[in-house]
Amino acid sequence: MKFSKDIARRTVLAASVFGLFAGAAQAQTDPLASWNDGAAKQAIVSFVKDTTDTASPRFVPPAERIATFDQDGTLWVEKPIYTQVTYCLERVPVLVKEKPGLAEVEPFKTVMSGNREVIARLSMEDLEKVLAATLSGMTVDEFKAEVAQWFDKARDPRWKRPYTELTYKPMQEVLQYLRASNFKTYIVTGGGQDFVRVYAEKTYGIPPEQVVGTAGGTRYEYGKDGRPVLIKEPKLLLNDNFGGKPEGIHLMIGRRPVAAFGNSTGDREMLEYTKAGTGARLGMLVLHDDAKREYAYGPAQGLPDSRVGTFTQQLYDEAKKGGWTVISMKNDWKRVFGWE
Amino acid sequence: MKFSKDIARRTVLAASVFGLFAGAAQAQTDPLASWNDGAAKQAIVSFVKDTTDTASPRFVPPAERIATFDQDGTLWVEKPIYTQVTYCLERVPVLVKEKPGLAEVEPFKTVMSGNREVIARLSMEDLEKVLAATLSGMTVDEFKAEVAQWFDKARDPRWKRPYTELTYKPMQEVLQYLRASNFKTYIVTGGGQDFVRVYAEKTYGIPPEQVVGTAGGTRYEYGKDGRPVLIKEPKLLLNDNFGGKPEGIHLMIGRRPVAAFGNSTGDREMLEYTKAGTGARLGMLVLHDDAKREYAYGPAQGLPDSRVGTFTQQLYDEAKKGGWTVISMKNDWKRVFGWE
Repeated sequence: MKFSKDIARRTVLAASVFGLFAGAAQAQTDPLASWNDGAAKQAIVSFVKDTTDTASPRFVPPAERIATFDQDGTLWVEKPIYTQVTYCLERVPVLVKEKPGLAEVEPFKTVMSGNREVIARLSMEDLEKVLAATLSGMTVDEFKAEVAQWFDKARDPRWKRPYTELTYKPMQEVLQYLRASNFKTYIVTGGGQDFVRVYAEKTYGIPPEQVVGTAGGTRYEYGKDGRPVLIKEPKLLLNDNFGGKPEGIHLMIGRRPVAAFGNSTGDREMLEYTKAGTGARLGMLVLHDDAKREYAYGPAQGLPDSRVGTFTQQLYDEAKKGGWTVISMKNDWKRVFGWE
Repeated sequence: MKFSKDIARRTVLAASVFGLFAGAAQAQTDPLASWNDGAAKQAIVSFVKDTTDTASPRFVPPAERIATFDQDGTLWVEKPIYTQVTYCLERVPVLVKEKPGLAEVEPFKTVMSGNREVIARLSMEDLEKVLAATLSGMTVDEFKAEVAQWFDKARDPRWKRPYTELTYKPMQEVLQYLRASNFKTYIVTGGGQDFVRVYAEKTYGIPPEQVVGTAGGTRYEYGKDGRPVLIKEPKLLLNDNFGGKPEGIHLMIGRRPVAAFGNSTGDREMLEYTKAGTGARLGMLVLHDDAKREYAYGPAQGLPDSRVGTFTQQLYDEAKKGGWTVISMKNDWKRVFGWE
């Protein structure tokens, strides 16, 4: 009797546990739970339904389901300055320790002063010297280790969190939703390809071979122990911005994407190229209009149209004309970060 | 009664059909059916078993299972001349039709003469002019269409078959075997990346994004109708031969392969780089020693060591020293082609 009572109790327990799971499963049926209902969410859902429905005239075979995502400002925070630039500046003291003479040479002298205002005014030419010195000259394995080590300790100045936690939860959901629908998701970034590859797999579930970015050459040679190594060279192979994005997509993927996501003028050509294909196409731009939860910049904030790398009025107009969907962070996103 | 007899007969029939299928399934349990038993076949089987067995110290996580294959001479026939060179030479008359003036200019005049002996003696510089003229200047979509059209009609001079039928059946089995074991298979070719991408998916089951090859730049611009296009430029971005193979692998894949297959000095650095990693590694070289079923060239045929792009004695010695496995076409392959 006791035994059968036990079984009965366990059955009830199992049923309620099952009920709980069923409830959770139901709540999870919305793959875009962090999105408010609206045109942006609807555009994504319709696109996925159409492209995966074999009965739809907009069906896309799985092999051709390529979706490309800009990173800075599209998948994670890009203000106050690009994370990679912060990395390069913070790497200078390490370089100076190795080569003390650098401390007396510009622009390294300015960087070493720690004076943020003066550093912020460094010319593009000076900044490139800092990038070249901190992004080349080492083996690809050494570079990977240096970047990984930096990310372990570095914290964003506003939220005091690791940079890899500053990804947008709604965009993480888009990545997962597309992958669950047999899309291959790629990062196509103006940032350094080798830099982003270090954390893309852990942070976004995107493996190194699906990261396209600004890329320098490497040089194959033999180390002191006779083992082959690849040395990072200060030679630019691909400037993955503006027209360089479709060029990089052709070089590294060899197919035209069916969906592309960006947030600035640097992504315009990628979206144009994506939308110019036949059949189903999705082009989306993240508009940063939420000063409270993140940052506000772009046409709504009255920035001059000519400013490169931002969401200009001209880009906003092209989006409207070309049928690209503008995502308002303020209105379309229930929450911005996963830890909120 | 008749009815039940029918059922009985059908059951017997079904059983024999099932038996047939079971027999077929058993015969198919050897994924390398076109390989003779021997060291080469054993090396592949052991490598796959070790890398996919979670209990093995040589286990490799699925995400890191990258295998790279040279194409010409490793996956398909490369003699008497590379298929792509044939394409470029046969493309010249089309070019001359578009620009008749070319017929009077060298090296196009020589190519138009049809004199094979003279054509075979064209200098590398002249050949590069032919390659540049036939591989750049058009949009990437136009190029793809031109190559696909050519493959439809072109036939190999010896077997009178489409070039895409001249792939090695044993190597096709290796590709499938590795993919069934969750390896990502890549082509890493000295040939043109855009050229190989046209047929790699249909011919090898390898999608465009997994073809790494010698690559030229493209230029993003707007066509007459205002739509964006990518124009193929005569600017070399990656010479995917020798040290360029590991460099290309890093650029396009960003991971060190755990298995690499080649057949000539142009593949040496790729194999060195692959074998220099830690854990399980497989490096294999196809030796062309079968004059009857295919071609014989390489150290056994007494070619001078300095000859570039071939299987030299030096390469053979390095293979033995480095623990790379040499595949003898003559001894290791039951059959060479799928249609034999």
